[in-house]
Amino acid sequence: MSIRIGISGYGNLGRGIECAIRQNQDMELAAVFTRRAPETVSILTEGVPVCRVEDAPEWKDRIDVMILCGGSATDLPEQTPEYAGIFNVIDSFDTHAKIPEHYAAVDAAAKKSGKIGIISVGWDPGMFSLNRLYGNVILPEGKDYTFWGKGVSQGHSDAIRRVEGVKDAKQYTIPVEAALEAVRSGENPELTTRQKHTRECFVVLEEGADAAKVEEEIKTMPNYFADYDTTVYFISEEELRRDHSGIPHGGFVLRSGKTGWNGENSHLIEYSLKLDSNPEFTSSVLLAYARAAYRLSAEGQSGCRTVFDIAPAYLSAMSGEELRKNML
Amino acid sequence: MSIRIGISGYGNLGRGIECAIRQNQDMELAAVFTRRAPETVSILTEGVPVCRVEDAPEWKDRIDVMILCGGSATDLPEQTPEYAGIFNVIDSFDTHAKIPEHYAAVDAAAKKSGKIGIISVGWDPGMFSLNRLYGNVILPEGKDYTFWGKGVSQGHSDAIRRVEGVKDAKQYTIPVEAALEAVRSGENPELTTRQKHTRECFVVLEEGADAAKVEEEIKTMPNYFADYDTTVYFISEEELRRDHSGIPHGGFVLRSGKTGWNGENSHLIEYSLKLDSNPEFTSSVLLAYARAAYRLSAEGQSGCRTVFDIAPAYLSAMSGEELRKNML
Repeated sequence: MSIRIGISGYGNLGRGIECAIRQNQDMELAAVFTRRAPETVSILTEGVPVCRVEDAPEWKDRIDVMILCGGSATDLPEQTPEYAGIFNVIDSFDTHAKIPEHYAAVDAAAKKSGKIGIISVGWDPGMFSLNRLYGNVILPEGKDYTFWGKGVSQGHSDAIRRVEGVKDAKQYTIPVEAALEAVRSGENPELTTRQKHTRECFVVLEEGADAAKVEEEIKTMPNYFADYDTTVYFISEEELRRDHSGIPHGGFVLRSGKTGWNGENSHLIEYSLKLDSNPEFTSSVLLAYARAAYRLSAEGQSGCRTVFDIAPAYLSAMSGEELRKNML
Repeated sequence: MSIRIGISGYGNLGRGIECAIRQNQDMELAAVFTRRAPETVSILTEGVPVCRVEDAPEWKDRIDVMILCGGSATDLPEQTPEYAGIFNVIDSFDTHAKIPEHYAAVDAAAKKSGKIGIISVGWDPGMFSLNRLYGNVILPEGKDYTFWGKGVSQGHSDAIRRVEGVKDAKQYTIPVEAALEAVRSGENPELTTRQKHTRECFVVLEEGADAAKVEEEIKTMPNYFADYDTTVYFISEEELRRDHSGIPHGGFVLRSGKTGWNGENSHLIEYSLKLDSNPEFTSSVLLAYARAAYRLSAEGQSGCRTVFDIAPAYLSAMSGEELRKNML
């Protein structure tokens, strides 16, 4: 019997989940839930219903794991605890500072309903977090480095779009190669924000807008750009569509550390991702953890979990025996 | 209270464990066990006894986890099940093909004694296995690549030393950069043994030995060298000691895969290690899993485990709350 997956929210992430389900023989898409009028939403999979989010509770016995594809700012803080009262759930909540309270809310709801909720799944938080943890436990005397990019930051692109005179924009976060090399060389450098990443902005102006003023406003924007070396390119709407419609991303997690009686030996652990599609990769991670949620729930477990709490074997469709034989 | 660690076997690995314990505040070294005469073995830690392996059972209640530092060929297949009858144990058993039977033997012994045995811990098997598993579950439609090096292969160095006329030798396994780049570029290449790694041998000849004959014999040795581009350098005993006394190693695990409705997006996951000391890094991994063994045992669990079965949170001295706050 397949694991029946529900998708709540049909944007880039929801569509990514839909695509990823096709790659996993032990899963099937049960239904997609949307806040839009269902008849206006057309999905890729044939024969699968699109339903109103309000009707989700009726699917209680027909969905094994609900994957929540809303945003971290306003959707997930409400949705994940609410749905955890009905379904096993997974989300990609990524507001790092608010993870503890989100965890507490989901844990309470899931314990009450006897369901499993796995939060903050994806690549950061997610695979990057796992690599920070593994790196820290293996090399307790060491230093962590996380670099993001090259990739599109949705938040920074949005910030540019709010500038007066900007019609549309796309922002790339780019790790500084020299900083990466300094880390790899074992120098254990102290790196400032400016030394780690640069920002490239591709901006389409409104007619008659003052380019110099827009550029100045972007480059001096606190938090978003002021602490970085930022380059602004003005391009046409057509160029933006043609050259910048993808959503690539990626990054690096490095742990450098010492071992030996006097710390005489150096080691470097490096994990990196190069992703053509940020939402599709995130979806693929979510789906692997959906399998874990299904299994934990089948074992009778309940409550909130993160990637830290899930033994890797739960993620694979292979048996323990197959894993030991083929992957160990 | 500290986790009391026992070390069985005091070679490079055992000494690595001893050093690593100093980096973990929640652990202490209880005793070292050796097959040699204890009075001939001097360890680094003051005030810790060196004992005969035969006396290990007397330490049943004074050691929380015994780390077995013997070899995979003959020591561990006997030792790990035997010790699992008395202690929680960890080993670094690395004969991939024999893992299933080793697992079965340790599982039976540990279930009977009510202890935990974690086998095949280190970096390959170990961290590399974990990365193969995570890569496969995230990108089910993809391809795996493992490269080793640059590093010293003990087995290949030993094989050279068995050649007539060779006094001493050191062998380095080196990944072919062009092959790595082909994988990183997303070409999904099919790579032969020869295309993935080269081998460099540093050889000290016996007096009067025939260099050409030795070189020919090394390069044509089946399994070890015949399938590789092998370079042989003849050096003096002094040079070998001066330039080749370290035990560096490392390698790369890559997973490349596609996502999207028609596999239109490519992704690359890369994990790499650059290690000054292979045994010290392996020791550090073993010790993190010793913490997990201690905790699983404290929970009342028993039987054999591998890295696939251990939730990452068990490896850290931090609480779940601290981990979510600081590492997620």
